[in-house]
Amino acid sequence: MSTSPVIVAIDWGTTRMRAWLLDTEGAALAENRSDEGLTTAQTVGFEPILERCLAALRAPDGLPVIICGMAGARQGWIEAPYVDVPSSITAILRGAVRVPHAGRDIRIVPGLAQRSTDAPDVMRGEETQLAGSRLEDAGRHVVCMPGTHSKWVVVDSGVVETFRTWPTGELFALLSSHSILRHSIGEQPSPVRAENPVFARACEIALAEGGDFASRLFSIRAGSLLHGLTPEGAAAMLSGLMIGSEVASARRQFLLADRSVTLVASGTLATLYRHVFKIAGLEVRDIDADAAVRIGLCEAARQNEMIQGVRA
Amino acid sequence: MSTSPVIVAIDWGTTRMRAWLLDTEGAALAENRSDEGLTTAQTVGFEPILERCLAALRAPDGLPVIICGMAGARQGWIEAPYVDVPSSITAILRGAVRVPHAGRDIRIVPGLAQRSTDAPDVMRGEETQLAGSRLEDAGRHVVCMPGTHSKWVVVDSGVVETFRTWPTGELFALLSSHSILRHSIGEQPSPVRAENPVFARACEIALAEGGDFASRLFSIRAGSLLHGLTPEGAAAMLSGLMIGSEVASARRQFLLADRSVTLVASGTLATLYRHVFKIAGLEVRDIDADAAVRIGLCEAARQNEMIQGVRA
Repeated sequence: MSTSPVIVAIDWGTTRMRAWLLDTEGAALAENRSDEGLTTAQTVGFEPILERCLAALRAPDGLPVIICGMAGARQGWIEAPYVDVPSSITAILRGAVRVPHAGRDIRIVPGLAQRSTDAPDVMRGEETQLAGSRLEDAGRHVVCMPGTHSKWVVVDSGVVETFRTWPTGELFALLSSHSILRHSIGEQPSPVRAENPVFARACEIALAEGGDFASRLFSIRAGSLLHGLTPEGAAAMLSGLMIGSEVASARRQFLLADRSVTLVASGTLATLYRHVFKIAGLEVRDIDADAAVRIGLCEAARQNEMIQGVRA
Repeated sequence: MSTSPVIVAIDWGTTRMRAWLLDTEGAALAENRSDEGLTTAQTVGFEPILERCLAALRAPDGLPVIICGMAGARQGWIEAPYVDVPSSITAILRGAVRVPHAGRDIRIVPGLAQRSTDAPDVMRGEETQLAGSRLEDAGRHVVCMPGTHSKWVVVDSGVVETFRTWPTGELFALLSSHSILRHSIGEQPSPVRAENPVFARACEIALAEGGDFASRLFSIRAGSLLHGLTPEGAAAMLSGLMIGSEVASARRQFLLADRSVTLVASGTLATLYRHVFKIAGLEVRDIDADAAVRIGLCEAARQNEMIQGVRA
């Protein structure tokens, strides 16, 4: 049975843009991925990129567009001001800001701000993934969304209570390509495999250290000088240390009572984090990140009455 | 009273070279600093650099030369193989390796290796600073030598028992110039002042977190977005977090019983670390790092009978 598109959904991040043509069920009829993120759009302009993307998707004229991510930043297309936490997920989605445009209804979902003095934090894009993660309405959920800037979010009865960012992916990239560890890891870092025992051992060490990984970084360099640690092993050790430290740190912050976490991730990252949670003795509920952002965008469109009756 | 030079002492690091003409009392009669560290020497050659340096110092023909640092690495001038810990400081100095050279007695002090499986580590250069720190023979000393790769060393009755590296300086440089925090800190990071209350507050947070700083990094970015944190404040916060975390982590590792630490440092770094130790409630014994390396090199020359009777 062929279905018709009802919305264009776009996750417009700093370096990447992912767009889908969605039907009334929230299923993807077409997809377009590019490197035309915020950084490119600031030079080229947002509208030309969107037009190219709509053409690539063969989006019908006048189809509405819902966007999340950095396109709504102050330096983005139009600012979608942060919603302060605590806030219900529904209220966040309803705060979508309209982009002035002649031919289409285009809106951008706002990000979240935590204005506490000691732990200020922000997010843009992950709030939509969160909305698409189909958390049960009742109870407290600790949600981990790994990435360049991993976000951990505490949701209680549909309300985002607090969140925090661990720049784990950025630290891994910086350390593996710009620090002294690049000599151990090599120019083309090997893909990290969860089943590598070096990865697991590094995780265990990191979990025991409670998030303090700096004291262990140089042992990677020394390991290659003294113990013949291979480049593959060095990359696995760094990855294990970094992810293990993030989990140890977040567990100290958020999981004092709970033993379960909702993991919103895809691909290799999902596999690695799942393995670390297992080592840490945490129960994991798995959500596919790609699906979550589509479902969240669909839900945002519905909450803003851009489409009707889509079952997200 | 004019005195005669008895030795040329050189601290030959990765990026810098510092050389002194020393008299029988270990005092500097002349100094030469350059950027001709290991990296340059690997291209230009060690001997031409040394000859230029000796000419600049007006070193008399035949005067012996004692060297510490990366010149003794495998990829250096001649390898001075690591001495394994535990080892007495005297035995380390006596392990200096002779560089084949027609006209002069040239020797390189070996570095240290810790071959443990879980915490392998290495140092080259700091062992000589340590030898020049005039630690009392009796008792246990925890020594902090801050820098690009800060070294913490436990010395007991003249024996180096264990040590560990925190790459604090390298992390600060990477994060301030290559991470998302560069937007908060600016292209020319402001000098960090110990008396900046943001520095002290970040230290306190880091000390309370036990060495886990990654969970706090993004709050610097969020602080500039939400609370108007200035570039100067952002640099001070990053510095406070990093040094505070190093001290928290090292305290957990090495200072369980002791409340005192020997700080071998110079300049701004000495001021910042002294301030963090004060916040951490630790007693500090101050050693000037520049003087320590000269005294250590002099002591190495004496232990290898390159000179006699110098009171180091």
